[in-house]
Amino acid sequence: MADRVKALAAAQFPSVDLHFHPQCFLSAGHFAGTDAERAAAFLAIANDASFDALWFGRGGYGSGRIAETALGQLTDAARAKTYLGYSDAGVLLAGLYGKGFQRIVHGPMPADINRSGGEAAVARALSYLSTGAADTLEPSVAGAGKVAAFNLITFSQLIGTPFQPDLAGHVLMLEEVSEYLYRIDRALLHITSNPAIRRVAGIRLGRCSDILTNDREFGHSEVQIVQHWCSKAGIPYLGRADIGHDADNKIVPFGGLRSA
Amino acid sequence: MADRVKALAAAQFPSVDLHFHPQCFLSAGHFAGTDAERAAAFLAIANDASFDALWFGRGGYGSGRIAETALGQLTDAARAKTYLGYSDAGVLLAGLYGKGFQRIVHGPMPADINRSGGEAAVARALSYLSTGAADTLEPSVAGAGKVAAFNLITFSQLIGTPFQPDLAGHVLMLEEVSEYLYRIDRALLHITSNPAIRRVAGIRLGRCSDILTNDREFGHSEVQIVQHWCSKAGIPYLGRADIGHDADNKIVPFGGLRSA
Repeated sequence: MADRVKALAAAQFPSVDLHFHPQCFLSAGHFAGTDAERAAAFLAIANDASFDALWFGRGGYGSGRIAETALGQLTDAARAKTYLGYSDAGVLLAGLYGKGFQRIVHGPMPADINRSGGEAAVARALSYLSTGAADTLEPSVAGAGKVAAFNLITFSQLIGTPFQPDLAGHVLMLEEVSEYLYRIDRALLHITSNPAIRRVAGIRLGRCSDILTNDREFGHSEVQIVQHWCSKAGIPYLGRADIGHDADNKIVPFGGLRSA
Repeated sequence: MADRVKALAAAQFPSVDLHFHPQCFLSAGHFAGTDAERAAAFLAIANDASFDALWFGRGGYGSGRIAETALGQLTDAARAKTYLGYSDAGVLLAGLYGKGFQRIVHGPMPADINRSGGEAAVARALSYLSTGAADTLEPSVAGAGKVAAFNLITFSQLIGTPFQPDLAGHVLMLEEVSEYLYRIDRALLHITSNPAIRRVAGIRLGRCSDILTNDREFGHSEVQIVQHWCSKAGIPYLGRADIGHDADNKIVPFGGLRSA
């Protein structure tokens, strides 16, 4: 997978010098290395000023396990860097954004090359990282003020923790994959019941793909669900977002576009 | 199911007058009636002083959807009543306990009669409701101070909402069913990262049954997981609790035993 991503980068983005940290190839049970190995790898790249960006290799589950360590040992070199990923990596994106880091970005990761059409997703990420090309961006970002994007369940499990960032005034985009509708409902109930979240400017719903089959029809679509909870919480529902666990997943720079 | 529970109650607990609200037999998609029907039924029993207890019929998912309405319209008659249930009903148990209600109880529900050996679970609940029999209690309750018990994921999705009760000084018991170990890990990371939860007296782990198979070995057992997060959070891990999604599920009265 790493070789394919490197080959794609070499062919299409020759200015990019891509480095895969050896930790990416470790294995420890569910994880790509022990917590100590994974935290050390994150910090080695984050705190090294010679890297312009830290690109999360893949999602799954595990970034929360290293968040306290990883976020607690960052140096000034880490602040100048772009951090790009999504899904489970959202825990660290959230924590970094909460610490005031300015270049936190939701978008495709190297592992997306395994998807159908995944080369386009990887190329989109590399295009954004190398030039910030406008055509890589989620379409509503240009007209919005502050924005942020997360996987729904990942974000739900940040609520009430020190990793929950202040998103007052932000358009919050949420996407999901491989969950039951009742869990999408429960996570939106959870998120929209949090007093701080009720200060967002609005919610956009990304794609909810591969929804698992309820033992009976849930009775509400994912759009009806998010409309219901937004209405109850007094949060504007702003429509769909062009993000999701798929090759079309567009780029969302946290905080929105900044003037040059 | 209701007929079997009524027959059991009539045979073994003739002093108990059991009433099933007609809402229990409604159906609206995933739910036993619409939110309005379910909230109205809850309030009809809760606010009726002629009932000594409100016994949740079953879990599943849905009590959170009515929590804001149900908890906002309670009268003084509701305070004198016992509320008994577990699993998804934990959302309302949490909200009621947070409002200072004194007789909030985690334990078997009528639907448990469908389990293997479920008559014993239903009889245990009826025994507790009718006499408060000591042999129905989770064994550690007698020696503990304040206690509370929840389903792990249900409780995780209360964190940071108005339904999260103050459990400072409580022994918190958590049980789970039909989840992946990585989700048990994620939920415990979530819960133990919340500053208010770090003030509990300790955590006990109930049974984690029917754990779903990870695509690779997770690498840590459920006990190792809870020990890990308790250690990181500075919360004492106190061992197992005799609760779970099974016929052996014992009674946990929130707040612990009170002297007569």
